[in-house]
Amino acid sequence: MKKLINKPEDVVLEELQGIEIAHPDLVKIHYDPNFIVRADAPVKGKVALVSGGGSGHEPMHGGFVGKGMLDAACPGAVFTSPTPDQMLEATKAVDGGAGVLHIVKNYTGDVMNFEMAADLAKGEGIDVEAVVVDDDVAVKDSLYTAGRRGVGLTVLMEKIVGAAAEEGRSLKEVADLARKINSQGRSMGMALTSCTVPHAGKPTFDLPEDEMEIGIGIHGEPGRTRMKIKPADEITEMLMMPIIEDLPFKSGDEVLLFVNGMGGTPLIELYIIYRKAVEIAEKHGIKVVRKLIGPYITSLEMAGTSITMLKMDSDLIKLWDAPVKTAGLRWGI
Amino acid sequence: MKKLINKPEDVVLEELQGIEIAHPDLVKIHYDPNFIVRADAPVKGKVALVSGGGSGHEPMHGGFVGKGMLDAACPGAVFTSPTPDQMLEATKAVDGGAGVLHIVKNYTGDVMNFEMAADLAKGEGIDVEAVVVDDDVAVKDSLYTAGRRGVGLTVLMEKIVGAAAEEGRSLKEVADLARKINSQGRSMGMALTSCTVPHAGKPTFDLPEDEMEIGIGIHGEPGRTRMKIKPADEITEMLMMPIIEDLPFKSGDEVLLFVNGMGGTPLIELYIIYRKAVEIAEKHGIKVVRKLIGPYITSLEMAGTSITMLKMDSDLIKLWDAPVKTAGLRWGI
Repeated sequence: MKKLINKPEDVVLEELQGIEIAHPDLVKIHYDPNFIVRADAPVKGKVALVSGGGSGHEPMHGGFVGKGMLDAACPGAVFTSPTPDQMLEATKAVDGGAGVLHIVKNYTGDVMNFEMAADLAKGEGIDVEAVVVDDDVAVKDSLYTAGRRGVGLTVLMEKIVGAAAEEGRSLKEVADLARKINSQGRSMGMALTSCTVPHAGKPTFDLPEDEMEIGIGIHGEPGRTRMKIKPADEITEMLMMPIIEDLPFKSGDEVLLFVNGMGGTPLIELYIIYRKAVEIAEKHGIKVVRKLIGPYITSLEMAGTSITMLKMDSDLIKLWDAPVKTAGLRWGI
Repeated sequence: MKKLINKPEDVVLEELQGIEIAHPDLVKIHYDPNFIVRADAPVKGKVALVSGGGSGHEPMHGGFVGKGMLDAACPGAVFTSPTPDQMLEATKAVDGGAGVLHIVKNYTGDVMNFEMAADLAKGEGIDVEAVVVDDDVAVKDSLYTAGRRGVGLTVLMEKIVGAAAEEGRSLKEVADLARKINSQGRSMGMALTSCTVPHAGKPTFDLPEDEMEIGIGIHGEPGRTRMKIKPADEITEMLMMPIIEDLPFKSGDEVLLFVNGMGGTPLIELYIIYRKAVEIAEKHGIKVVRKLIGPYITSLEMAGTSITMLKMDSDLIKLWDAPVKTAGLRWGI
């Protein structure tokens, strides 16, 4: 196992220590239970956004805590759901009196634990709503999931809904917006290589030197199919078509196109993918009005990419463009 | 070879096509000869900054073209110097009448070609100065270099000097500032794995499953030594101490600490390195006043890290904090 770590059991703790000394202007770290909150939390009168999930997908979610995005993130062990006490304490720490929205990726452990935390928080008088993200069109039901998996759309949701909360919208409005985003965004990913979970010490799956996996999950869960590696343009087509056909995206639609790197993919390759993805979208009459290109929801050092398309309107565009200041996404401030 | 590409010979062209459609608000692409310029180039009365080098180090340099940083970048083939005609045409395209600064990493081909381009540009009446970056303390003379290699400090120089040019400083002032930065910044890197140049189709070097290379170059050139993989804290010490001792950095110094990912290293690991690097700096009385953490000067999909320290003062801090709007670095706008 080739990793820049000390002991596998200290990876998340030491990462949090690094974040704490790197970004004191943006975040505070709470240990035991572990969570990351905005430096100015709680923000009085603002709906607070809490997300979380297994570590190993950085910068998601901890790198998205800050003005205009998340109020708190709960990191679990690598590829392992955080616990209800992390979520509960984070919820209490960021509640500014206007309620808290939980953004939950659709994995069985995450959903169960966030539900438990929400019930406990409500018992303490905090208004909590939850939105489950399930944008991955690759498979229905999976290793850790009933229904579809939550993947790249989570990043876009956290940005857009974060801006809406910053604007002063109510908990109901913010939750409805998140559900709308989930209803009009779709994703699919692929891998050239596996990743290695530090505790496991060996690759999550074996993939021969000339093969790739289409429809991979962000924890290396099985996708749709394995096949010989194809040129980038064909791979892009294999990801874009199921996305377009699923929603379906239609001629005249305006979209945000997000080409994501899985952690071990050079940026040069993501631009090659982006180029072809735009060409395919345009061939279907779909207009790319906003974009995001880079490693934002990763699977440790996995080589691969995922594509997310979100149907936009003037409200979503305005919220996407709004200022954001986090370690992982920053503009306008 | 596992890459998201089409044909190896089309990698740079298709990357440029991707950048062109992704960032029309930031840059324009010129083909044959290939270079990337600011969308609003030439900026009248402003000193223009031109850099360039082999591709495969993205986001450097093309991702740093934009307001507050570079005016143009010349991408060569992967790990291959761009040609003098690229540099000459880029220089002419961005000259706003206040002169042009060439920022050149110290590799034999880059230095020779930028010198030739500068001579040709001067022959056409353009005022050109050049600064060579040679911050890598790992080795003296190397596979492609007489003297030290230019690595991570280049990113910091492009940001800081870009802000100075934006402020309206003269060509002489901007060039002197770049030389000052080169004199007070040092770097060193290491690799866990090799990278694979698309044209070559196989790893640049072989590194056994339990070994790492300390002092690696950004093209996979040999470093100081190979050894069994150590814990992250020991690796950080092996990079930090030669950096501190070389300048030397002294107790009381204020620095910018840059922990760079080589392309295939998860962000989670960079924060573990950053945490230890700050601890080592503080133990020596060195105060980290600014930081940069992420993959900014990469070697395709190489797994590894490099550390750069730059001694700061109030002028450098002000310039570092100034607004920048590029695909690779953005804040304040």
